[in-house]
Amino acid sequence: MTNTQGLRGQSAGDTAISSVQATGTGLAYRGYNVVDLASKAQFEEVAFLLLKGYLPNKGELAAFHSRLAANRGLPAALRTVLELIPASAHPMDVLRTGCSVLGNLETETHFSEQQAAAERIIALLPAIICYWYRYTHDGVRIDTLLDDTSVAGHFLHMLRGSAPNELDTKVMNCSLILYAEHEFNASTFTARVCASTLTDMHSAVTAAIGTLRGPLHGGANEAAMAMIALWNTPDEAEQGLMEMLAQKQKVMGFGHAVYKSKDPRNAIIKAWAKKLSESVGDRQLYPISERVEEVMAREKKLFANADFYHASAYHFMGIPTQMFTPIFVLSRVTGWAAHIMEQRAHNRIIRPTADYIGPEAQAWKPISKR
Amino acid sequence: MTNTQGLRGQSAGDTAISSVQATGTGLAYRGYNVVDLASKAQFEEVAFLLLKGYLPNKGELAAFHSRLAANRGLPAALRTVLELIPASAHPMDVLRTGCSVLGNLETETHFSEQQAAAERIIALLPAIICYWYRYTHDGVRIDTLLDDTSVAGHFLHMLRGSAPNELDTKVMNCSLILYAEHEFNASTFTARVCASTLTDMHSAVTAAIGTLRGPLHGGANEAAMAMIALWNTPDEAEQGLMEMLAQKQKVMGFGHAVYKSKDPRNAIIKAWAKKLSESVGDRQLYPISERVEEVMAREKKLFANADFYHASAYHFMGIPTQMFTPIFVLSRVTGWAAHIMEQRAHNRIIRPTADYIGPEAQAWKPISKR
Repeated sequence: MTNTQGLRGQSAGDTAISSVQATGTGLAYRGYNVVDLASKAQFEEVAFLLLKGYLPNKGELAAFHSRLAANRGLPAALRTVLELIPASAHPMDVLRTGCSVLGNLETETHFSEQQAAAERIIALLPAIICYWYRYTHDGVRIDTLLDDTSVAGHFLHMLRGSAPNELDTKVMNCSLILYAEHEFNASTFTARVCASTLTDMHSAVTAAIGTLRGPLHGGANEAAMAMIALWNTPDEAEQGLMEMLAQKQKVMGFGHAVYKSKDPRNAIIKAWAKKLSESVGDRQLYPISERVEEVMAREKKLFANADFYHASAYHFMGIPTQMFTPIFVLSRVTGWAAHIMEQRAHNRIIRPTADYIGPEAQAWKPISKR
Repeated sequence: MTNTQGLRGQSAGDTAISSVQATGTGLAYRGYNVVDLASKAQFEEVAFLLLKGYLPNKGELAAFHSRLAANRGLPAALRTVLELIPASAHPMDVLRTGCSVLGNLETETHFSEQQAAAERIIALLPAIICYWYRYTHDGVRIDTLLDDTSVAGHFLHMLRGSAPNELDTKVMNCSLILYAEHEFNASTFTARVCASTLTDMHSAVTAAIGTLRGPLHGGANEAAMAMIALWNTPDEAEQGLMEMLAQKQKVMGFGHAVYKSKDPRNAIIKAWAKKLSESVGDRQLYPISERVEEVMAREKKLFANADFYHASAYHFMGIPTQMFTPIFVLSRVTGWAAHIMEQRAHNRIIRPTADYIGPEAQAWKPISKR
């Protein structure tokens, strides 16, 4: 059977976790429009929704918060491993390794442990990346078992060493919701293929982290940041961008494999980027971003996707650029875990065939005759 | 579009690396029948064939041997990490973590480094698993930079602490060839999905290890070993097996997702298992294995696959059962690396769609109303 490159447009399975188009509202998690969720929900409510299939009531949410908070302590052996990883390492390699090490120390030995394993991973990944970052960059061994009430606040607190203000916590909360889930994207699909052999949760999440690491998947907001940081004014940006387009360079943060006319997540993060820009007194990065968006629409008919304004938003929050893709992990791990559980519940090993295009049968030739 | 569960029978891409049926000879690597390779080649020739597409001449093979031998030393930080992993860990978790850690210490920063990265991983995975195993089980810190002339010999040497005899080395060489490559099996497909985001070699191999770990994929020879070890005589085995079948228990090591009438690899490893059985004076495990094979053919019309006689063969070589699946990794990593390189050379991100079966659009409900 002839294949479609990259399985584009081919269905690889059923899912009840999210839909990009099916519910008629753009992206929806378990039927809830992502725009509603991003403006009204806590990330923890969304994580619960993805994992369990419904929005938690007060008691369920409080219990979930407590479990996440209790799971923030790093095992001693894992701390030591993180200290052995050099400051020059790729932060996604650190997260991938941290998750893999955790699988040795707290192995998921039965699927009845999957919810607990997922919650532990969700709670611990922010601690893993921040512990390593602060140790290798600031020379401090941080305490990760802090009592922040949200994943967003906990992450910012560890990264900065002080509790974040309300605005930053809100934006980070929104950002984590926007990135939490997106159907059979490459990292989620990797997690499902991996899970389909009935392997453990840590293996599947580790595999997904390594997939999101690739520049075609998770790196778009970092690349967008690197680009907008090149310019000092909107006019300079327009000129530089036009040159890039003339040279047919790829501009990251625009267009989407699935969305054709707009990314429903863009307006939300753009509004927060604007608010942050005002709050920090920015006169440069936000206007440049807007100009880039205008030029891309005018010249290429391409819309800004969820990644583009994340670049400036994160920057205004003082987050180092190399932590952008790791934040994607801290969010998307909720979607991955939900997909791993869904795959397990209706499993068939994912084992496609291939079209063979190699040589015909060849006769063995001894090495002396080669 | 309605999906086929597990993508069964659907092509997910082109490959020139191996074919199960296309060349008319059963399994063939780059057109060479695996039966020919397993009886005539060195594993290193096969690894070279998979990676480069052709069989090496004398000079190329000698250079490849030298590079592998030079790559056997473990970085100090990786040794420390391995020492931190408990003896009770799953050996596949150790391999997955070892590969991931290596990606932090020796990051592949450009695809021009892919051949070197692959060779380093192929050379080092045996050292990773043996160093951890010997440290946690025997309390010794082994030197992995040994001058054995083959991967098979190097592995057995490290595992046992002394150079292996010729027969064992030959069988291990053959085993590594048989397991080296098998088209778009789940672990290889994971490696390709991961690689399709243009991530690094270590991420893709790490993802594949975690996938092979699953009991539906890599664990079959361990499960076969556990089963044949239950019985003391062929008659007892027949009785026990008949009971298992009556209870509809799954018998591992039989049948295959792709092969329908026989697994071409079975006869080869079966012959070696017989020879090893004679050499160690076995009167039990081999006759039991033969009886199980007979009963499965008679009762279920199922043939022994490559995994079944690997169980007794490895056992006769004194290999602990929990090392069986790791050996699969030491072999299959050559196929994975070849597929990662092939994916990169003709890349399109692997991003299928899904059939949405979840709830219709739902209205947001504040937590006080839930």
